[in-house]
Amino acid sequence: MEIRSLRSDTMRARDLGIETIWQLTPGPHNAITDVAGVRVGHATVWFGEGALIPGEGPARTGVTVILPHVGDLYREKVAAAVHTINGYGKACGFEQVRELGEIETPIAFTNTLNVWRVADALVDYALRTNPAVGVDLRTGTINPIVGECNDSYLNDIQGRHVTPAHVFAALEAASDGAVVEGAVGAGTGTTCYGWKGGIGTASRVTPDATGGFTLGALVQTNFGRSEELRFAGVHIGRFLRPSQSREQERGSVMVALATDAPLDSRQLQRLCVRAGAGLARTGATIGHGSGDFVIAFSTTQRVSKHTVADEAQVMEGLFPAVVEAVEEAVLNSLCAAETVVGRDGHIRHALPVALIARHLSTVV
Amino acid sequence: MEIRSLRSDTMRARDLGIETIWQLTPGPHNAITDVAGVRVGHATVWFGEGALIPGEGPARTGVTVILPHVGDLYREKVAAAVHTINGYGKACGFEQVRELGEIETPIAFTNTLNVWRVADALVDYALRTNPAVGVDLRTGTINPIVGECNDSYLNDIQGRHVTPAHVFAALEAASDGAVVEGAVGAGTGTTCYGWKGGIGTASRVTPDATGGFTLGALVQTNFGRSEELRFAGVHIGRFLRPSQSREQERGSVMVALATDAPLDSRQLQRLCVRAGAGLARTGATIGHGSGDFVIAFSTTQRVSKHTVADEAQVMEGLFPAVVEAVEEAVLNSLCAAETVVGRDGHIRHALPVALIARHLSTVV
Amino acid sequence: MEIRSLRSDTMRARDLGIETIWQLTPGPHNAITDVAGVRVGHATVWFGEGALIPGEGPARTGVTVILPHVGDLYREKVAAAVHTINGYGKACGFEQVRELGEIETPIAFTNTLNVWRVADALVDYALRTNPAVGVDLRTGTINPIVGECNDSYLNDIQGRHVTPAHVFAALEAASDGAVVEGAVGAGTGTTCYGWKGGIGTASRVTPDATGGFTLGALVQTNFGRSEELRFAGVHIGRFLRPSQSREQERGSVMVALATDAPLDSRQLQRLCVRAGAGLARTGATIGHGSGDFVIAFSTTQRVSKHTVADEAQVMEGLFPAVVEAVEEAVLNSLCAAETVVGRDGHIRHALPVALIARHLSTVV
Amino acid sequence: MEIRSLRSDTMRARDLGIETIWQLTPGPHNAITDVAGVRVGHATVWFGEGALIPGEGPARTGVTVILPHVGDLYREKVAAAVHTINGYGKACGFEQVRELGEIETPIAFTNTLNVWRVADALVDYALRTNPAVGVDLRTGTINPIVGECNDSYLNDIQGRHVTPAHVFAALEAASDGAVVEGAVGAGTGTTCYGWKGGIGTASRVTPDATGGFTLGALVQTNFGRSEELRFAGVHIGRFLRPSQSREQERGSVMVALATDAPLDSRQLQRLCVRAGAGLARTGATIGHGSGDFVIAFSTTQRVSKHTVADEAQVMEGLFPAVVEAVEEAVLNSLCAAETVVGRDGHIRHALPVALIARHLSTVV
Repeated sequence: MEIRSLRSDTMRARDLGIETIWQLTPGPHNAITDVAGVRVGHATVWFGEGALIPGEGPARTGVTVILPHVGDLYREKVAAAVHTINGYGKACGFEQVRELGEIETPIAFTNTLNVWRVADALVDYALRTNPAVGVDLRTGTINPIVGECNDSYLNDIQGRHVTPAHVFAALEAASDGAVVEGAVGAGTGTTCYGWKGGIGTASRVTPDATGGFTLGALVQTNFGRSEELRFAGVHIGRFLRPSQSREQERGSVMVALATDAPLDSRQLQRLCVRAGAGLARTGATIGHGSGDFVIAFSTTQRVSKHTVADEAQVMEGLFPAVVEAVEEAVLNSLCAAETVVGRDGHIRHALPVALIARHLSTVV
Repeated sequence: MEIRSLRSDTMRARDLGIETIWQLTPGPHNAITDVAGVRVGHATVWFGEGALIPGEGPARTGVTVILPHVGDLYREKVAAAVHTINGYGKACGFEQVRELGEIETPIAFTNTLNVWRVADALVDYALRTNPAVGVDLRTGTINPIVGECNDSYLNDIQGRHVTPAHVFAALEAASDGAVVEGAVGAGTGTTCYGWKGGIGTASRVTPDATGGFTLGALVQTNFGRSEELRFAGVHIGRFLRPSQSREQERGSVMVALATDAPLDSRQLQRLCVRAGAGLARTGATIGHGSGDFVIAFSTTQRVSKHTVADEAQVMEGLFPAVVEAVEEAVLNSLCAAETVVGRDGHIRHALPVALIARHLSTVV
Repeated sequence: MEIRSLRSDTMRARDLGIETIWQLTPGPHNAITDVAGVRVGHATVWFGEGALIPGEGPARTGVTVILPHVGDLYREKVAAAVHTINGYGKACGFEQVRELGEIETPIAFTNTLNVWRVADALVDYALRTNPAVGVDLRTGTINPIVGECNDSYLNDIQGRHVTPAHVFAALEAASDGAVVEGAVGAGTGTTCYGWKGGIGTASRVTPDATGGFTLGALVQTNFGRSEELRFAGVHIGRFLRPSQSREQERGSVMVALATDAPLDSRQLQRLCVRAGAGLARTGATIGHGSGDFVIAFSTTQRVSKHTVADEAQVMEGLFPAVVEAVEEAVLNSLCAAETVVGRDGHIRHALPVALIARHLSTVV
Repeated sequence: MEIRSLRSDTMRARDLGIETIWQLTPGPHNAITDVAGVRVGHATVWFGEGALIPGEGPARTGVTVILPHVGDLYREKVAAAVHTINGYGKACGFEQVRELGEIETPIAFTNTLNVWRVADALVDYALRTNPAVGVDLRTGTINPIVGECNDSYLNDIQGRHVTPAHVFAALEAASDGAVVEGAVGAGTGTTCYGWKGGIGTASRVTPDATGGFTLGALVQTNFGRSEELRFAGVHIGRFLRPSQSREQERGSVMVALATDAPLDSRQLQRLCVRAGAGLARTGATIGHGSGDFVIAFSTTQRVSKHTVADEAQVMEGLFPAVVEAVEEAVLNSLCAAETVVGRDGHIRHALPVALIARHLSTVV
């Protein structure tokens, strides 16, 4: 499969001179992979040009996977939580996470109508390393976690072009270190505030007094109307709009949060709630047609059932970290995404970063 | 595909002389199809004998579908609600029902690892009649509703043998009138209280003073330990156990409720909660490994956004109706299910109905 | 204040020869106080006879308190959870338990319109031992937990006759060991299945294989229509009705669960859900007008933040324990409660235990 | 009781030249009272100076009430919903609103330890006009709705100085038209972003295409750390801090939303969720110790059980209205509040509005 070249002028949001709006320090890669053990992989599906032939193309879509640790997730499940901000979406696997407070497969993001095929592929993946599932009754079942955004403005969504092979490719490509952002993987065809959105990530390290933990966020952005966009709090959407703008938000946003703080499911759920504040800082009003879901996990709970004794203190560190990391991850998804031309010549323009940087330099 | 012959001695639960434990009157078929417009269809998947070859067979599984009305569900959505009693399961589509309070596809029940393939097939089904989904942005997406039980004691669950063709066959076979119960469709391989369980259904008509509405239940039973079984309140499980009994409940139960009362989503959610009381009357303690989910819909809300003005009165009629219908549907699933021999010679015995009838005749 | 003499013929439910319906063994007192450290206290408010003078009397009400341990609860909070089966009630303090997963005051049950006065008295109680609340900002606030049932058929509910002095008396009277049941404390004026209900309690010890933990339940019963009553599964309500029966359930039931299993809040919440199954076994259909609430706590979480590593195993022991203990506690509330004549000569008859015992001896 | 004079330089937030950050038009008073029939009343409790004598004073507190319509609320209940953003608080009456989707008393805001006394006073109020509650069983009970913030930095919170007389005074003082904001009623002693907070309000009218409905918000602000404050998106907190700043947020915020759109409880709940986005725009990261609650009601549902047929369209109008109205209401609370000196000489400074206006004029 083809991986698209990324824009040559890529800057991340904080390169625009706006880091003063944040108070906490990012990790080394300013990415969800700053949480030790976490890996991210993409598979991008991109073929065809021109008129949409439903079920055939063109394809501008993909899948992005997040692996909480390098071991066998099915055998070493991690504490997790989910949160639904607006439930107009097909997120998969949430009921069991609410009941048992853990996840046992990688998290995958993809497009709306591909959710179930990707979930089925995650089952294949779990069966590979755990062939006894369903054979020995004690082994239990498999609960894949999949989120989605609707990329039908650029992509032939009925085609469901993400195959098991793509899911496996993304899993195999998963690595730590810097994360490719923008129009890649599950972000290939998405739209954010009327501009090309996609994958974004960021991280924060909490002050030593609150534990010195790392919190990372990864987002798939597909929400917002262009007139709503705030960049570093500045209402950019008031004067800057994409030339071709089909409004009426029908988008979504998926947020994954990772931390090395030893939190249990209830505590992770409290982190999830704060993701909404990060989205709101970029201008989100959480549209009716938006599926806005958050998934959080702790990488440390596979080792121990001990949780933090000083919840108040640790949370006071982590909560602002969530807000900042999610806000920055959204902005990063906008800064990284190149212009994409999709089906029927539909176009989503890259955010004109240089223009915004120039404006922000006068006000922030 | 082969549809298994049913047991020759089939009785429904109330044929055992226990109807005095219930106070409300059933509809003409004592089935979910007593709610006008509701149709039920099964496709049974049954092949192979002997040793399990994971991924190949033997298969003892299937799919059961419930259609709320005879029109195009995607265009005429019905008010609906979901409720999770114990969330150890893979139920699909719940987030959107919670947010929007409606369903837009048939409800399908199948086995655990087949959930996503069946969901994907429901998307195919919706696309057939609504080819503009994702082409015209206003059309939105599709939210399939799928529930499941784990039939791996009898069935090669890794094989995921329910194909889109089976789903379409069940949809085409769907009809009103009497519903085939027992080891059929999604109930082919399930186990209830250590005995062969499966599909069961029942209905109630509420008194005129509370509206004279019809409430129907359909269950896929796969829960309970044999020593827990209560039949008409009598603790049958104390003295009657199946000869081959692999305990440790890892089962589940799916419950669908239909009504012609004009209820909104919040009110339907209140119905769902009462399903748990019906299960409990048969002995359920709601095991850790059980995915116990309830889905309710009203057939009338497609016509009007008007809801009942006298909620208290209507609910006082419907709540006992839910409890009775669910209890009886569970018992019906046990009475109807034949003995099934599955993979590795695993056997689930049919409940010895005559024996129980004899015992009950002395005490009820 | 006057404590009414209890009926001379008091039997507990299992004295009726029905212990064969249960599989687990009760603790030494078959009471919530079998969980080490838990104490229960009542204050009964009983004065006046004859016609109701709203705001003045007669009074048939009271308060019952449950203390999770003998220390200062405010400083040594215990892990806790809440669950709402039907939310038509005024239960107090639930939001904070959901967020933080702990309780910091005794639990009090009282009548519906007295909830806020009793809550305020619990604040007085907490301030006594923690005078720095609100003075030193780090001390936080106080979240009293109060549940209620509507005893207005027998009691002058508008009078809100439970004073802070009663709350303090109940707290001071709290003790371990046997618990007085029936028409006492918060159960003084309540009605269950048309008969005199009140306070009931029971306990179970889980098998060693699942941890050998103790689970105790205490209920304030005020629910059900007389025709619904099941006693040991037998549909007693079909042929036995109280002579003066004002039906139309508008009642409620409060359930408190205690355990020495080291469970966290999510796990305790899972226990709460099973209480509904215990209620259903006695015939409950969970009426529209019923406020049915469950509160669970673990006495061990004040010591450690460690939770059970083998959740599935421990839960398989505890879940049936909850169901059995709640069922038996409800039956105990009925067996213990004497006939009470209240305002306007309204009468709630004691359940004719001997009659039922005679009937059950022929069928169970 | 003394009503404090308000600051002479009072400006509302949009007087600072920031109205360009908003897209929707406010109603005539830019207040929750723009929703026809809604009235607001305050009672301020202010006495004593100097050192705190717990239980005696000084008092800097009060109560604010919101009445959804001019009729008898108990007899003409309105559709309502509640939402908990962070549940570390004592909000009262939420369970029943979740179950039945309506409110039947005025909404009252007060301080943390006064919640139950104010709730009890609302019961008195309901009993005045409905003397049959509890006498005639069909009349039901009363579910008062009370929210709170912790004003203990300025106020003697243990004293619980808000009496029934204050609640009645606020109810009697309730009026439509302009709403007094700032350090008044329930806002007398609260702190927001380290500055003096209090009561704020704002409203929006949705575009005709989405129904032309009015949405009003009223907030009691007591949250945020001074370094977090965003004003019109500008990170004011980065350079402007109050001189005496005891950080560590332990605050809360109560939000009431009113609308004349004919929404049912599920739809109103969706409005509540968006309030969090409005808070986030002002800098909120939703602290651990914060009780952040939202209550929404529709004034039209008393007339009809009809709801909007075009939910998507109406919501697309209302959701941004909620975000904007809540954001502006918070800013209004800060702009209106005068400096308050409380117990132990604790001081909360009024936000230096002129200074901020000067700064904003250069950047917005």
